[in-house]
Amino acid sequence: MTGASQGRVHIVGLGPGAPEWITPEAAQALDEASDIIGYFPYVARIALKSGQTAHASDNRVEIDRARQALQLAASGRRVAVVSGGDPGVFAMAAAVFEAVAHGEPAWRDLDIQVMPGISAMQAAAAKLGAPLGHDFCAISLSDNLKPWDVVAKRLRLAAEADFVIALYNPASKARPHHIFQAFDILRDVKDGATLVVFARAVGRPDEAITVTTLREADPAQVDMSTLVLIGSSETRSIERTHGPAFVYTPRSYGRSET
Amino acid sequence: MTGASQGRVHIVGLGPGAPEWITPEAAQALDEASDIIGYFPYVARIALKSGQTAHASDNRVEIDRARQALQLAASGRRVAVVSGGDPGVFAMAAAVFEAVAHGEPAWRDLDIQVMPGISAMQAAAAKLGAPLGHDFCAISLSDNLKPWDVVAKRLRLAAEADFVIALYNPASKARPHHIFQAFDILRDVKDGATLVVFARAVGRPDEAITVTTLREADPAQVDMSTLVLIGSSETRSIERTHGPAFVYTPRSYGRSET
Repeated sequence: MTGASQGRVHIVGLGPGAPEWITPEAAQALDEASDIIGYFPYVARIALKSGQTAHASDNRVEIDRARQALQLAASGRRVAVVSGGDPGVFAMAAAVFEAVAHGEPAWRDLDIQVMPGISAMQAAAAKLGAPLGHDFCAISLSDNLKPWDVVAKRLRLAAEADFVIALYNPASKARPHHIFQAFDILRDVKDGATLVVFARAVGRPDEAITVTTLREADPAQVDMSTLVLIGSSETRSIERTHGPAFVYTPRSYGRSET
Repeated sequence: MTGASQGRVHIVGLGPGAPEWITPEAAQALDEASDIIGYFPYVARIALKSGQTAHASDNRVEIDRARQALQLAASGRRVAVVSGGDPGVFAMAAAVFEAVAHGEPAWRDLDIQVMPGISAMQAAAAKLGAPLGHDFCAISLSDNLKPWDVVAKRLRLAAEADFVIALYNPASKARPHHIFQAFDILRDVKDGATLVVFARAVGRPDEAITVTTLREADPAQVDMSTLVLIGSSETRSIERTHGPAFVYTPRSYGRSET
């Protein structure tokens, strides 16, 4: 075997932040890597071992990062590309396969594997109860890579379908108005009493969860670390004497529960 | 502290089957449980420790199982309710919170926690590449608990929104025709060249993955262990010299990639 034939790219999901949510598969991939590549806050989570090289980069350079990973693998390195959450959900896996599709032909036959992780909506759902217990969708509000009218159309159709809706990348300094526009669309279609959750930094020390309604929710509260969940017409809360309310969406739809 | 005050219900995601996808949090919850409750194939995955009691039951008795778990916890037992995949996604978490909402008032203040897991769509996506790399939705085709016209409406709106679509519970002996009806709706809205994946038993020894198109897909191939993925108009495959094709959905939408 040549060095190059041992090269590989593992695209590793770190989960939302808490170490107890990193799968054994992902932990092993990190342990075996010669090079760890990713957005710097994710690389910073990893305790480097002797001999491991870290390549941390800013956001908005995903394709460059993917190409670097593939080039290193082609030269025989064992590369771990790290993502928060699940790398397959609004994260690095798509960027790597875009780079493969448009890159060196030899990259197609590299050992490329995706290690799934717990995505932000799953972590938020677990903390709340079971808000994703019925049909749901996940929409990124970023228009870096898609026109806003596509986002707006999907929000309207998702509201008409009465999906539970998870909003990723809901706001940034470059586009603080998108979350307000999204709430305008949702309020146009859905009842004001619909439950809304702002789940910030779930699984990290600064975790903060707000349960409110579509009528009362303040989109100004949302930042880039917030996962927004919009309930379906069936999503309910359960008040408790001690502790925050549970939020769940029943498995049944359109009939009274027994 | 009384015995009852130590009782708890942990709703634990086992992932799709491979042990390397069980999070450390979930493994610890199983390790500490006095009672393990679930659908029998999931309970059968767990190596019981001395002193642990297993309560395996059939499917379609989710609410009874949830009530049993809550009753045991109220009596001081440390209960793990096990689900395949993520308990929050078409699994036991919603059933437990439905039981809490309609059950004994004291159940609301029990220690109830959800431990997320890797869901079937994430496992299938990881094996394929990055088909969920852009906006997507998840729909259960089961009409045990919701009218079929709700499913049909959601399928049509999801197709019009051009989401990547994950279909859970796509077929059973009781309703083998649903997957055919679903494909009729999807073919009515979407292009015949749309990529379709049948991912059966991902992460288990009998794993089998088929990549085809909406035009050519045979719904008769789908069984209850199959996760069906329907691409968006942007989902693409990458042919390889060795190994199966990769499938991915680019992060961009409606523009040529660079």
